[in-house]
Amino acid sequence: MKIAVLTGGGDCPGLNAVIRSVVRKGVQDYGFEFVGVRDGWLGALRDNMLPLDVSAVRGILPRGGTILGSSRTNPFKHEDGVRRIRDSLAAHDVDAMIVIGGEDTLGAATELSRQGINLVGVPKTIDNDVAGTDYTFGFDTAVGIATEAIDRLHTTAESHMRTLVVEVMGRHSGWIALHAGVAGGANAILVPERPFDIDQVCAWVKKRFEINYAPIVVAAEGAVPKEGEMVLKDRSRDEYGHVRLSGIGEWLAREIEGRTGTEARTTVLGHVQRGGTPSAFDRWLATRFGLHAVDAVRDGAFGTMVALRGTDIVRVPLDETRGRIKVVDPALYDEFEVFFG
Amino acid sequence: MKIAVLTGGGDCPGLNAVIRSVVRKGVQDYGFEFVGVRDGWLGALRDNMLPLDVSAVRGILPRGGTILGSSRTNPFKHEDGVRRIRDSLAAHDVDAMIVIGGEDTLGAATELSRQGINLVGVPKTIDNDVAGTDYTFGFDTAVGIATEAIDRLHTTAESHMRTLVVEVMGRHSGWIALHAGVAGGANAILVPERPFDIDQVCAWVKKRFEINYAPIVVAAEGAVPKEGEMVLKDRSRDEYGHVRLSGIGEWLAREIEGRTGTEARTTVLGHVQRGGTPSAFDRWLATRFGLHAVDAVRDGAFGTMVALRGTDIVRVPLDETRGRIKVVDPALYDEFEVFFG
Amino acid sequence: MKIAVLTGGGDCPGLNAVIRSVVRKGVQDYGFEFVGVRDGWLGALRDNMLPLDVSAVRGILPRGGTILGSSRTNPFKHEDGVRRIRDSLAAHDVDAMIVIGGEDTLGAATELSRQGINLVGVPKTIDNDVAGTDYTFGFDTAVGIATEAIDRLHTTAESHMRTLVVEVMGRHSGWIALHAGVAGGANAILVPERPFDIDQVCAWVKKRFEINYAPIVVAAEGAVPKEGEMVLKDRSRDEYGHVRLSGIGEWLAREIEGRTGTEARTTVLGHVQRGGTPSAFDRWLATRFGLHAVDAVRDGAFGTMVALRGTDIVRVPLDETRGRIKVVDPALYDEFEVFFG
Amino acid sequence: MKIAVLTGGGDCPGLNAVIRSVVRKGVQDYGFEFVGVRDGWLGALRDNMLPLDVSAVRGILPRGGTILGSSRTNPFKHEDGVRRIRDSLAAHDVDAMIVIGGEDTLGAATELSRQGINLVGVPKTIDNDVAGTDYTFGFDTAVGIATEAIDRLHTTAESHMRTLVVEVMGRHSGWIALHAGVAGGANAILVPERPFDIDQVCAWVKKRFEINYAPIVVAAEGAVPKEGEMVLKDRSRDEYGHVRLSGIGEWLAREIEGRTGTEARTTVLGHVQRGGTPSAFDRWLATRFGLHAVDAVRDGAFGTMVALRGTDIVRVPLDETRGRIKVVDPALYDEFEVFFG
Repeated sequence: MKIAVLTGGGDCPGLNAVIRSVVRKGVQDYGFEFVGVRDGWLGALRDNMLPLDVSAVRGILPRGGTILGSSRTNPFKHEDGVRRIRDSLAAHDVDAMIVIGGEDTLGAATELSRQGINLVGVPKTIDNDVAGTDYTFGFDTAVGIATEAIDRLHTTAESHMRTLVVEVMGRHSGWIALHAGVAGGANAILVPERPFDIDQVCAWVKKRFEINYAPIVVAAEGAVPKEGEMVLKDRSRDEYGHVRLSGIGEWLAREIEGRTGTEARTTVLGHVQRGGTPSAFDRWLATRFGLHAVDAVRDGAFGTMVALRGTDIVRVPLDETRGRIKVVDPALYDEFEVFFG
Repeated sequence: MKIAVLTGGGDCPGLNAVIRSVVRKGVQDYGFEFVGVRDGWLGALRDNMLPLDVSAVRGILPRGGTILGSSRTNPFKHEDGVRRIRDSLAAHDVDAMIVIGGEDTLGAATELSRQGINLVGVPKTIDNDVAGTDYTFGFDTAVGIATEAIDRLHTTAESHMRTLVVEVMGRHSGWIALHAGVAGGANAILVPERPFDIDQVCAWVKKRFEINYAPIVVAAEGAVPKEGEMVLKDRSRDEYGHVRLSGIGEWLAREIEGRTGTEARTTVLGHVQRGGTPSAFDRWLATRFGLHAVDAVRDGAFGTMVALRGTDIVRVPLDETRGRIKVVDPALYDEFEVFFG
Repeated sequence: MKIAVLTGGGDCPGLNAVIRSVVRKGVQDYGFEFVGVRDGWLGALRDNMLPLDVSAVRGILPRGGTILGSSRTNPFKHEDGVRRIRDSLAAHDVDAMIVIGGEDTLGAATELSRQGINLVGVPKTIDNDVAGTDYTFGFDTAVGIATEAIDRLHTTAESHMRTLVVEVMGRHSGWIALHAGVAGGANAILVPERPFDIDQVCAWVKKRFEINYAPIVVAAEGAVPKEGEMVLKDRSRDEYGHVRLSGIGEWLAREIEGRTGTEARTTVLGHVQRGGTPSAFDRWLATRFGLHAVDAVRDGAFGTMVALRGTDIVRVPLDETRGRIKVVDPALYDEFEVFFG
Repeated sequence: MKIAVLTGGGDCPGLNAVIRSVVRKGVQDYGFEFVGVRDGWLGALRDNMLPLDVSAVRGILPRGGTILGSSRTNPFKHEDGVRRIRDSLAAHDVDAMIVIGGEDTLGAATELSRQGINLVGVPKTIDNDVAGTDYTFGFDTAVGIATEAIDRLHTTAESHMRTLVVEVMGRHSGWIALHAGVAGGANAILVPERPFDIDQVCAWVKKRFEINYAPIVVAAEGAVPKEGEMVLKDRSRDEYGHVRLSGIGEWLAREIEGRTGTEARTTVLGHVQRGGTPSAFDRWLATRFGLHAVDAVRDGAFGTMVALRGTDIVRVPLDETRGRIKVVDPALYDEFEVFFG
C-alpha cells in the first residue's frame, strides 16, 4: 500500500510530529510506502512529490513547521483540479492520502473524499476551531507563547501604570485569547464570538487602576466592538490599499486612552504564535493523531478524520465537521468574567 | 458562609491558581468568607489558620507552590485527629472546606466527609494518577520540564555517542515518563505498570547505535525490572542506612554499560519537575477547578471532587475514587512501542 | 546615612535586582537607611516616597519591572524642578541618591550632580546604548526574547517559503537587532547606524530563496533606508493624527513583496522585549551594579556611575558619558555580513 | 588552503555555532576548504574525517552538540600519536587546524603546536575555567539552565519549608555555582575554590528558616568541606566499585538534616546543563570566535587561541594559558556574602 501525506494551510507546531509518526508506524508495523506532497494541494495539482521514508523523518519531532511545505491553495478553485490530483496520485501509484490541515484543507479533503479519493484527515490549527475534536495540536503551543508574553507584559504595565493590550491570533474564534487570557491573568478578554462593549472594557480598565494595578486586555484579532464593525472595516486598509498590520489591538489602545485619559499600549503577537518547537502536549497529540491516522488507512476508514475526545483518539466522519467552526461556548466564557476588571 | 481552604501533599504547580480562583469567585460572586489552613492537615490539627481575602490572592496565579504551605500529615494517624479538626473548624465558624490534594490528602478528605465534615475536593498531583479525572494540574508542567530536559540531553548523547538515561518522577504510575518520553522522542520508556526486560532495553539501545544515533531511555522512578525487585530493594539504602538519591536510573546506566559495552550516563530530574511557574494548560485547569469547587460548595455538593472529563469540569463522588490509582493503560503504552529502539 | 533610590525611563528587566542588592548591602553591611522614590523624577518632584527596608525587597530578584514605578519625567522641564527635588530630599533627610536609568534619566542626574546633589548612577537600558559600559542589564534579556522569536519564525518562513521581517527595539542604536540577528541566524540585519539599501536587502532575499531557504530580515525600529527618510516620516502618523504602531518592519515587507514578487510578512516584537523575568546574565549584572553603587556612595564617589568593563565593575564620571549614545561600531557590524543573503 | 576542524572534550552548547561560522567565513570570504575531524583527537589519530562545506553547516547554529562528535581522547597517551595525526592531516592535504576544546583539548593542541602543527585554538567549556578569556561559550547557557532550576526549586522549598540543595557542574571551579547562585537568589553558594565550613552553612540555613523562608544551597560538584576531604573520597564509589552519581549535594542534605533537625532535599542537575540549544549570548560569542579563528588562520597566527576581552575578540598565545585553570577570585566571591543566610 502506498500513501501520500499532505500538509495544508497556515503553519502550525506539530505538523512534523504527525508526519514522523505516520511514516514510522506505517513503514515499521504495516510495511506501507509513503510519498510526501509538497506545499499542500499545490503539490497535488502539480505532481510535486518527494520520497518519504523513515530516515527522512528522523529528528523532526521537536521541529516546528513542515518538511513538506504548505500552501493555502484550494484545488476546487483550479480548473480540472480533481482530475489533476487523481493523475498525480495515479502517477505515483498512491492508494490513499493522509491530509493534515485546518478547516479549508479538510474542507477540500471532504469533497475529494466524496468524489472517491481514499483519504483520512488529521485536524490541525493553532486556533483550535476545527469541529469534532476537543483540541487540535498547535493550539497548546500558541497559548503557551501568548501566556508567556502576557506574563512579561504585566511587569511593564505595572512599572508604568498603563494598560497593555495584547492582540493574539483568532480571526473566527477566541480560543487562544480565552485560554491565554485566563492563564495570563488578563483583566479583560475579547473574543469574536461576543462583540464587546467598549464602555464596559473601559470600566474594567478603570476598576483595575483604582486598586493600583495596571490592566492587561487580551483581544483576539477577530474581536469586534458591538457598535462598530464599520469603524473597523475603515481601518483595514491603508492609503496605498495594503492591508494594515494593525487592527483591533491598536484601536482598543486608542479608545482606552481617549475615553479614560490613561495611557495604553498595544502588542500584536503575530507569527511567533505559529512557529517553533511544539509544546510537549502538542507533540503528544500530534504523534497520537499520526499513529491513529495510519490505523484508519489500514482499516479502510476513508472519509474520516482522527479526533481527540477526552483522552481517546476517535474517528469522525469528515462530512460531519465540514463547514462548521468550533466556537467558544458562551457558558465557558462566562465562567471567567469574575476575573475581569 | 465561611470556607476553609487547605493544600496537602507534595508541591505542585497550580496550587496557587486554585486558591486564587476559589477566593475570587467565592468572595465576588457569592459573598463567601475564607480562611486558609496552614501546612495541610497539620494546620487543621493545630488550628493554624490565616485570613484569606481577595488581596491575599493577588498576583499568585503564575507562581508555583502554595501560599498556604503543605505537609504530608495524615490526620487519622494522630490521636483524636477528627475531633481536633472539628474543633479548629468550629473555632473559626467554618461551614465547609475545599481540600486540594493528591491521593493521600483526598483519602483523608473522603473519610472526614463520611464522618460529616462538609467538604469538596480538588485533585492535584504532578503524577496524574488520581482516578476519576482525565488530568490533574501540575502534570502538564512536569511533562514540559522533563521534555525540555530530554531535548537537551539528545544533543549530548549524540555528541558522545552514549546512552542517556533520564529518571523522571512517578513512583506508582508512569504518566510523566510516558508523555515526556513520547514528546521527547525517547528510544525506550519504562513505567511501573509494566516491569521491563533489561535484555529488551539493551536490544533497543544497540539497535539505536547501529543506525548511528544515541539512545535516550526514559524511566519513571518506580520502574522495575521483571526479574529484579529484590535487587532494587538492596540498593535503596546506603551503608549509613540513609535512603539514596540514586535509583533505577543509575542501575539502568550500569546495566546498559555492562551488558552492551557502550557508555551510558544518568540524569535524575528530581524536584525541578514539581516547582516553578505552572504551564498555561495547568493554570487554565487549576483556575477552572477552583471556580467549579466553589460552585459545588454553594450547591452543597459535599463529598465530591471536581474533575476534568474531555473539556468539561464535572463532579465525582470522592467515594468512587478512594484508594484507586489511575495507571497507564497497556493499550496506550503499546501505541508507542513503534518508536522504541 | 540615608539614601533615596530612583528608577527612571522605560521598563527594563533587572531594575528590581538592583534595588534589592542596593538595599541588602546598604542595610546589612553599612547600616544605611533607604527610601524609594516613586515613578522616577516625578516622585522626586512631588515628594512621593516609600520606605524601603530589607523585607520590602525580598523575593523581587527574579521579577521584571520596578517596585518603585517609573516615568519619563524630566525634572528640568518643570519649573523649579531642582529646588523641588532638593526639598523632597531634605524632607526625608536624604544624604544621597542612587539613580537607575538610561540616557535621559542619567542626563538629568548628571545635571543635578553638577548642582550639588550627591548621587551615584546605575546605567539601565534594554537598548545597550549607554556610553561608558560594556553592557547594560536588560539587554541580554531583550536579545534572548528576540532570538527565541526568530527561532520560531524560521520554521514558519520555511513552511510557506516567504520572507519574515522581525522588527525589534532600538530607535537610536542597533544592538538588539545585531545580537539577536546574529544569534538567530538572520539573512539581513538592519540597524539605525547604517542606512540600508533596499535593493541590497532584496538581493539578499532573492539569494536566500535561490538555495531553497526562506529569508529572515531583522530590523531595528530605527533602521532607515538610504534614500528614504522622508518616506518613513510620512508613514509615522495615521489619518487621525495618531502615531501608528507599524513602522519600518511593515514598510520592508511591502517593499520586498513589491520588488521581488515573493511573499513577505512582518512581526513587531514590541513590549515583550522589555518585561518579565531577567535572564541570569542580567540578574548577575544588575546585582553587581547595585552592590558597587552602594560602595560608591559609601566612598563618597558622587557624580559617577557604575559600569561594566570586561568582568570588572568600575566607576565612570557621569560627565564623561553625558549626551553620548553608544552605537554599533561599523567594524563589528561588518564582521557578520558573511551571513547575509 | 585546507583546514581541519576538530571539537574535543565534554559537550557544550555553541560548538556547532563555531563550526558554522568558521566554514561560512572561510569558504565565502577566503575560498578555504574544510574537513571535519570526527570525535575529537580520536578521529585525528584514526584518520576519520568528513567533508565540510557550507551546505553541511546550514541550520546548525541553534542546535546544541557538535556535528563532528567529540571524545576525551588524549593523543599523547597513544603511541606515535603525533606522527599519526601528522599522517592523517597529510593524507587530506590539511594546512592548518582549528581546535575547539577545553583545557585538556587545548593542552594537547598547545603541545602539537610546539611540535610544528599549524593550529588555532577556540576555548570551550561550560565551566568557564579556561584561562585567558573573560568567558567561554556554553557557560551562559549552563548558568541559565541552573538559574531556571533554582527559580523552580524556590517554590517547592517554600511550600514544604525545607532546604533544597542544588548540585551544579564545576569540578575544579565554581563559576556556574556562583553565577547561578547569585542569579537564583541562593542563601549559600559553595565552590571548590573555597572549602566550606559545614557549621557556617547550617547557620545560614537556620537564619533563613528564622525569617520564615526556605533556604536554597547551591553547590558546585567540586565543593569540599574544610575538614572533610577524606569523608568525600569515601563516598565516591559504591559497594560494587562503581562511581556513584551522588556527591556533595547528597552529603550536604544529610548533614543539614542531621545538624539542624530540619528537612533537606537534593537535586543534581547533571547533563542537562551541557546540552540543548545555546543561549543568545553563547551563539553570539561562538559565532564571533569562529569568525576570528578563521582570520587567525589566514594571518598565520598559529599557536594562538581566540579569546574574549571586554567586548573584543583577541588572540592569546596558547603557551600562556597552558595548564592554568581560571578560578573564582576570592574578592568576587566575597561580594555576594551579603546574600547568604
